[in-house]
Amino acid sequence: MSELELLKRSLPQRFKKSPEEMLKALEEGRLEPMSMVSGFRVKKGLWGLEPGTVLTPEWLIPAFPRIPRLFVLKEGLRRNFTGPFYAEEKIEGYNVRLVRLSGKIVAITRRGYICPFATDRWPDFLDLEAFFDRYPHLMVCCEVAGPENPFLTEWPPYISRDIRFFVFDLLDLSTGCLLSPEKRYRLTEEFSFPAPEVHGPFSAHQWQEVAEILKRYDREGREGLVFKERQGQRVFKYVTPRSNLEDLRVSIAFAGDLHPAYYLHRIIRLALAHLELEERRDEELWRDFGQAVFPPLLSALKEVKRGGRITEQFRIRLRSKLAFENLLKHFAKTQVRIKILHQSWEDGYLVVTFSKEYPRSTDFWASKLSGAPEVD
Amino acid sequence: MSELELLKRSLPQRFKKSPEEMLKALEEGRLEPMSMVSGFRVKKGLWGLEPGTVLTPEWLIPAFPRIPRLFVLKEGLRRNFTGPFYAEEKIEGYNVRLVRLSGKIVAITRRGYICPFATDRWPDFLDLEAFFDRYPHLMVCCEVAGPENPFLTEWPPYISRDIRFFVFDLLDLSTGCLLSPEKRYRLTEEFSFPAPEVHGPFSAHQWQEVAEILKRYDREGREGLVFKERQGQRVFKYVTPRSNLEDLRVSIAFAGDLHPAYYLHRIIRLALAHLELEERRDEELWRDFGQAVFPPLLSALKEVKRGGRITEQFRIRLRSKLAFENLLKHFAKTQVRIKILHQSWEDGYLVVTFSKEYPRSTDFWASKLSGAPEVD
Repeated sequence: MSELELLKRSLPQRFKKSPEEMLKALEEGRLEPMSMVSGFRVKKGLWGLEPGTVLTPEWLIPAFPRIPRLFVLKEGLRRNFTGPFYAEEKIEGYNVRLVRLSGKIVAITRRGYICPFATDRWPDFLDLEAFFDRYPHLMVCCEVAGPENPFLTEWPPYISRDIRFFVFDLLDLSTGCLLSPEKRYRLTEEFSFPAPEVHGPFSAHQWQEVAEILKRYDREGREGLVFKERQGQRVFKYVTPRSNLEDLRVSIAFAGDLHPAYYLHRIIRLALAHLELEERRDEELWRDFGQAVFPPLLSALKEVKRGGRITEQFRIRLRSKLAFENLLKHFAKTQVRIKILHQSWEDGYLVVTFSKEYPRSTDFWASKLSGAPEVD
Repeated sequence: MSELELLKRSLPQRFKKSPEEMLKALEEGRLEPMSMVSGFRVKKGLWGLEPGTVLTPEWLIPAFPRIPRLFVLKEGLRRNFTGPFYAEEKIEGYNVRLVRLSGKIVAITRRGYICPFATDRWPDFLDLEAFFDRYPHLMVCCEVAGPENPFLTEWPPYISRDIRFFVFDLLDLSTGCLLSPEKRYRLTEEFSFPAPEVHGPFSAHQWQEVAEILKRYDREGREGLVFKERQGQRVFKYVTPRSNLEDLRVSIAFAGDLHPAYYLHRIIRLALAHLELEERRDEELWRDFGQAVFPPLLSALKEVKRGGRITEQFRIRLRSKLAFENLLKHFAKTQVRIKILHQSWEDGYLVVTFSKEYPRSTDFWASKLSGAPEVD
């Protein structure tokens, strides 16, 4: 089938696009053919579709919505919830959408790529075949989290090896709507899906109870909470000071790759949370903040000074060699430079350690350390 | 005289611009007529002229060059200086260029405005009439620094009241070149001009002596050093950790007005300086950093939370009411919102206290504190 033919079958009638418009979108690269499945990812916003949307002959798979953030609990909960809401643990992981397409269950990343890693590993954690047999029109939204994931260097403190899947949302592809929290809780329980810890329901005036959970999460090194309307689609997130400190710690060496706002936003969130939660003494915050930023920054500088590079280390386990090859293709396509350090089979898993290379950040520090002047 | 006529007389022949091109530049607002003197400021880069350049029938007054920054001393000095260089104290102040135009001595800001404050106050500090009688073709580059200046909330620790002028460069308007350091030292001494502290000359291998000065400056709360080639035009700057900490302290409340890179750059400079100077124990840096960022940030949040605004307080003294009126016009033109709090005559000076209003930063914090969600 030609690309145009496939697109005609994948784009719902209601979009009313001519073949010329479709061809143009393909030529301009706004739509990109998927790997492993028949369909297209929306690369740049198009026809009202968010980047990360996936078009297939079976389903239009909406991009996972960006969850609005609250900076304060008391006013934030009062302002945004008129009725009761649940507070679910926000899991430090990466987001995938699992769907069954032409009989094959695949995990799709935020940006709309097939995730070879999660597509390989879901059978270890979720009985999705049984689920999709019964609910072929539902999309399973998961966080993939743990020390052995291929994308993130942060994970929940209670996962000490490998990864876990956490089902945090179910979306009805036939309507584009999320299932209500309680419907989702029933289904995840029925299928024994691992899911984030749930608190509530609460009303906005119970913000102090919510604050107590966050203070505990902060002590335990957990990321935060996602607030979900009991009846409705409103969702908001809030993260712990510790999560912001950890973000700073793992990111500061990559200042040549990240936008400066990445750091400032976390400082701002820290201050607003500290003002309301009083989760640590003032002096502890000063110290924790400096300790989050400077030791990793000074280590990175020393590493580059002695001729080293800015890298991140990963270790993952996969069920097949093919999945790893697909992951390598995925990295190549998304311009992530990696270097394989070790691979071996252990207990039926291909265990791979690799490093991601950050030449921009390496050069960023190397230039300054070399004595090159800069005009700012 | 028409604007075009004045521009024809102000733009040197070598630019070879037609009247049409000149009119276009005026119409597009790339050139703006000066207040108080006959001439134009270059608002946006034009014909190879930097923003801040001033064109007058007497002189083309070049923009003050941005001084490249070094992040490390040892490699930086070695790489950038083949011969000896001086190290002059970098003064925490604002930069003005003083020239005599049609018999009137005026101070010009970095952006090419007449500075009503420095234009009013120079006679208290510099005998410029005598200087320009002898050297009408020289431009006097000064830092204006002290607790009673209208622009900055930082100043050198050894100035406890009012302001001072520091002559740090002399530029020959007939050639566009800076005088060599030693020529400048002779002239500033001859005219008893106050000037920044001078160290050296040094060679690059003496970087540790330079580091010792910076460690002392750091302890004393001074801003840094400017390195100037003994024979030549090369100039570089380097600031102390304390100066970066103070920048963070006075700026963090204005995160709604400043670019996020403003903060990140200072964190980066702190780390690079700390690595080389070892000016304080590691734990002191962690604490000093947190103490620079959070107390002012939390104060600002509390202020906005109780309905207050983000402002800066200033107190200045002027020799005339007219100078103050001109300063108010300058603020209006440069879109600085101020509120006069008090004015009175003291010992022949008009002493004014005023606050600068930062509605963008106020709204930035107020929105977050109100519980408004943000998608990031």
